[in-house]
Amino acid sequence: MRFRESVNPLNIFMKVQAYGAHASDKDLEPLTIERRELLSNDVKIKIIYCGVCHSDIHAKNNDWGNAKYPIVPGHEIIGRVEEVGAEVSKYKAGDLVGVGCMVDSCQECSQCNDDMEHFCENGSTSTYNSKDKHLGGHTFGGYSTHIVVREEFVLSVSEKLDTKAVAPLLCAGITTYSPLRHWNVKKGDKVGVVGLGGLGHMGIKFAHALGAETYMITTSPEKAQDAKRLGADGVIISKDDEDMKKHFGTFDFILNTIPVGHDLNPYLQLLKPDGTVCLVGAIEPLEPFHGGNLILRRKRIVGSLIGGIAETQEMLDFCAEHNITSDVEMIDINEINTAFERVQKTMSNIVLLLIWHHLINLLHGSDTL
Amino acid sequence: MRFRESVNPLNIFMKVQAYGAHASDKDLEPLTIERRELLSNDVKIKIIYCGVCHSDIHAKNNDWGNAKYPIVPGHEIIGRVEEVGAEVSKYKAGDLVGVGCMVDSCQECSQCNDDMEHFCENGSTSTYNSKDKHLGGHTFGGYSTHIVVREEFVLSVSEKLDTKAVAPLLCAGITTYSPLRHWNVKKGDKVGVVGLGGLGHMGIKFAHALGAETYMITTSPEKAQDAKRLGADGVIISKDDEDMKKHFGTFDFILNTIPVGHDLNPYLQLLKPDGTVCLVGAIEPLEPFHGGNLILRRKRIVGSLIGGIAETQEMLDFCAEHNITSDVEMIDINEINTAFERVQKTMSNIVLLLIWHHLINLLHGSDTL
Repeated sequence: MRFRESVNPLNIFMKVQAYGAHASDKDLEPLTIERRELLSNDVKIKIIYCGVCHSDIHAKNNDWGNAKYPIVPGHEIIGRVEEVGAEVSKYKAGDLVGVGCMVDSCQECSQCNDDMEHFCENGSTSTYNSKDKHLGGHTFGGYSTHIVVREEFVLSVSEKLDTKAVAPLLCAGITTYSPLRHWNVKKGDKVGVVGLGGLGHMGIKFAHALGAETYMITTSPEKAQDAKRLGADGVIISKDDEDMKKHFGTFDFILNTIPVGHDLNPYLQLLKPDGTVCLVGAIEPLEPFHGGNLILRRKRIVGSLIGGIAETQEMLDFCAEHNITSDVEMIDINEINTAFERVQKTMSNIVLLLIWHHLINLLHGSDTL
Repeated sequence: MRFRESVNPLNIFMKVQAYGAHASDKDLEPLTIERRELLSNDVKIKIIYCGVCHSDIHAKNNDWGNAKYPIVPGHEIIGRVEEVGAEVSKYKAGDLVGVGCMVDSCQECSQCNDDMEHFCENGSTSTYNSKDKHLGGHTFGGYSTHIVVREEFVLSVSEKLDTKAVAPLLCAGITTYSPLRHWNVKKGDKVGVVGLGGLGHMGIKFAHALGAETYMITTSPEKAQDAKRLGADGVIISKDDEDMKKHFGTFDFILNTIPVGHDLNPYLQLLKPDGTVCLVGAIEPLEPFHGGNLILRRKRIVGSLIGGIAETQEMLDFCAEHNITSDVEMIDINEINTAFERVQKTMSNIVLLLIWHHLINLLHGSDTL
């Protein structure tokens, strides 16, 4: 590890308010957690907004089998700097900042050196549910009044944008921006976005802003209007074979946000030679695909996960330049359990939706206990 | 189409000897076929050797449902130029040349203009079993004494190499060379080759010659010696979980030559972030793979098919420079039916083998009838 005071020597901490769950089958409830006192390169952030990501619900419910309780979710954090460590140079009190899915990494492996902290060879530290290097135990997320994060993992947020609508950019934004940039989507390309949820709606906005001819690909004709409002040039109904056939062999890139196992073959058939289907949602087994759909026209199936810190900052700056934010609904933190239910219900009613981001307006009373 | 005398105006043709089958359940037998008389940019080639590719057997047996009879297989052709059309500039009588899987394409679409005739938007003409633009009917392959091919699809073959061992380069060679080059395999990369058949053995030779640390990945420990003789630095036994685990997350590129549906997950787990598994064999449904195996480390599954003409020439020149040829067994054309049986038997006995190339030494008697 690059030298850093890696353990808070006197184990000095402050207590802050949070919302968390004590078990997978329990609701979230108010609780008190500890945050470390500032190390020299730490930033203390007073949280204003935090997005509700569907993965927060997976984590709380222990769907991935690795939940540590009490669990305090939240990795789409917007707040203002309240205090900085002695060696912090990038931020000062009052700055509008964001924190995404990671709060630390080794900063010295080849992946970290290549600005890909999310692939850190020694394991990056997730904003919640990861081992806490400083206080022991595990990290707590953004459903909380304050967070302390090392400077390198704090992002600068423009004052120009609607602040609450920036929060989901820290996860849904970078998850869709990163693959579009990595696979060089540009003006003149024909790009499809499959699924119109938290990820899909950002995919359309970014593909459009990058100059691509952008199509929403969906099972639901009623989504056409929403898709066009978000920037889609056209909508393809994937259940309509004739509609799909018209577009066979014409796409450069398809961003596939479907969150569950499904059949990739129809999307592979939409690609040009050298075209790419990129998975960002389905962290589970896909149905069998036909090898000929890749081999005969040198096509690709790829996956992509969030992005590194530098690219996340680039995405936030791109959003400020192009006036891009997420479509959000605001709720109060004390409505979080109802919100979790609603997000899950949306998922089951509209199968192709992945993550719908709601926002929590944290109540700030006596912030630091 | 770019201007060319697209139909032989007087339908003038010569008759030549060939071996072909009149139905899927019939053996190959001697027959007489027609070749067009030379157009201005045609090259007439006296065939010396022709490889036996497993796809010849699939085609003859109508396994892909598109066979046209009588079928004369053969797309790994080596011969000498016997005569050239008035406008041919690249070749003269006596030159050693090759013909691979294609004999024509539109030469004007964006794919052809990008030297990717195998992806021709108007459909390339396969060496056999494609529509014959000149004589009508369908094209006949290299199990024959002569072939007439337009200059652009004739390849120059070095006199330095063992000529008979060059033939399979026209299919197995370019099929493995093209993806290694396209995905930029280079010195310092760790490359795996899955399956040690006609494709796999060329994959090892090329990856080694490109400077990669090359591993054979196989179910069969007894193949270790062969793999090392071909240039592999190591062998991984895919049935041995411990052996596989030692290499988890370490490969840049895996060339997967398995010709049948199989489980990709173990190979995906061998990849580094941004690593690639490339399919060149399995033109059939693959078993379900786990989306997380792509998403969590931005990995890729891609496919690749032969290569364009310019790249095929580059491959032949690379082989001459690095003294690379295929491992071959010579048989006489009148042993072709036994050879087909043996190739099929090899396939069923050693499941991970794809294509084993045998060579036919064509008997030249009264060549042109």
